[in-house]
Amino acid sequence: MSWSARQYTKFEDERTRPVRDLVAAIPTADALRALDLGCGPGNSTAVLAARYPQAFLTGIDSAEDMIRAARDRLPGVTFEIADIANWQSSDSWDVILANAVLHWVPDHEVLLPRLIGTLSSGGSLAVQMPDNLAEPSHVLMQAVANEGPWAAKLAHAAGERSQVASADWYYGLLRPLCTRVDVWRTTYHHPLAGLDAVVEWFKGSGLRPFLAPLSCEEQVEYLLRYRSALADTYPIQPDGTVLLPFPRLFFVATG
Amino acid sequence: MSWSARQYTKFEDERTRPVRDLVAAIPTADALRALDLGCGPGNSTAVLAARYPQAFLTGIDSAEDMIRAARDRLPGVTFEIADIANWQSSDSWDVILANAVLHWVPDHEVLLPRLIGTLSSGGSLAVQMPDNLAEPSHVLMQAVANEGPWAAKLAHAAGERSQVASADWYYGLLRPLCTRVDVWRTTYHHPLAGLDAVVEWFKGSGLRPFLAPLSCEEQVEYLLRYRSALADTYPIQPDGTVLLPFPRLFFVATG
Repeated sequence: MSWSARQYTKFEDERTRPVRDLVAAIPTADALRALDLGCGPGNSTAVLAARYPQAFLTGIDSAEDMIRAARDRLPGVTFEIADIANWQSSDSWDVILANAVLHWVPDHEVLLPRLIGTLSSGGSLAVQMPDNLAEPSHVLMQAVANEGPWAAKLAHAAGERSQVASADWYYGLLRPLCTRVDVWRTTYHHPLAGLDAVVEWFKGSGLRPFLAPLSCEEQVEYLLRYRSALADTYPIQPDGTVLLPFPRLFFVATG
Repeated sequence: MSWSARQYTKFEDERTRPVRDLVAAIPTADALRALDLGCGPGNSTAVLAARYPQAFLTGIDSAEDMIRAARDRLPGVTFEIADIANWQSSDSWDVILANAVLHWVPDHEVLLPRLIGTLSSGGSLAVQMPDNLAEPSHVLMQAVANEGPWAAKLAHAAGERSQVASADWYYGLLRPLCTRVDVWRTTYHHPLAGLDAVVEWFKGSGLRPFLAPLSCEEQVEYLLRYRSALADTYPIQPDGTVLLPFPRLFFVATG
């Protein structure tokens, strides 16, 4: 299952809004060393660079295609191909950003304290994760998977994502390790150009584990059924727009 | 029912966070004339002034106590006592801010187009409203009202607030009148110092219509019952904190 930088950046404006909101909420005034975990094509790294122009920046991502796009975009930043779950660093960080990535990484109760342990004094870990598994967009991905000839192939597709826990859970885990934990959950209502745009949006993210195991013909059929299921749930505005509600959980933990 | 600037500003940091988020999302680059509808004690006006330091600012509020506090805080701004529902102005505005106020004003389907009509070209109407009537904090206000000896006195308390409609509804109303409508809904999880702090928080806002009709003795008894009802619903963190989830609906409509 490879990530496509081109597909992901089709909705770059909308996908960059959450990281702007996240970075704006970091209380750490100055950062000399900042890390972007799961930097993707570098759009989140660019937001970090704008907030901390003096900082030495490092970005890591597991997808070669993303790292290539990020290097083209920000030649002054160090980008490495690495897996967050196994990645170790002896450095300490003033800011660690993890935007739209930790829902693909398991064991938050181990991972997050480990990341907090690498912060400098007054440093911040800033996290944003899509919290949309209960949204119709994702319930329908699973329903279409269950009801098609591909059910066996897709039995484990949903399992690639980690469950995002509650705001209380993250607060309770992090507060004893930090001086301040700020938690919020925002549902953006993205105006997209009809149902086809909703399908395109998720082809770049949530649909990937459902499409990757399928043949080309199956993908076409799966997407047709998915689009038709969406039509029953997402009303079309008089101007043809579909408002896609997209909930995301945020927290900023400061050491 | 009079508003108390002192009670309201007890949680000023937490109450100012939403207006900072709202003002940061306004796309209007420059504003010469900006209006703060329901300016309260001036905390929202101060955020507007910081974003648009060149602007000529006007704030209006129906509460004398609030206007007095606002004038003390920002002597360079014009503050007037006025009711939003009846207030008329022949001016045109580059930015109109309405932070945590329109849920007290009825008839949004008439009010909002009227406000949009007073915007200059490229101007923005930026609105934030608490969207918490379905939260336990508010359901319990009503339950305690219904189940006490004060039930008759409080029969109309909840009616003082307008129902906040859905994101889709506001988008559908405003999009035909504007070039861009940005809608989102954020639940802040405010860490408060135990259940007493939760009660104090709402004494400055949502509880006001429930307390105003009661005698002093009844208020004490009402608040005791309310606090005890909260205890069953809001878990206390190991450090004594209660996380208060507070959902708010935002939109920025640009002409």
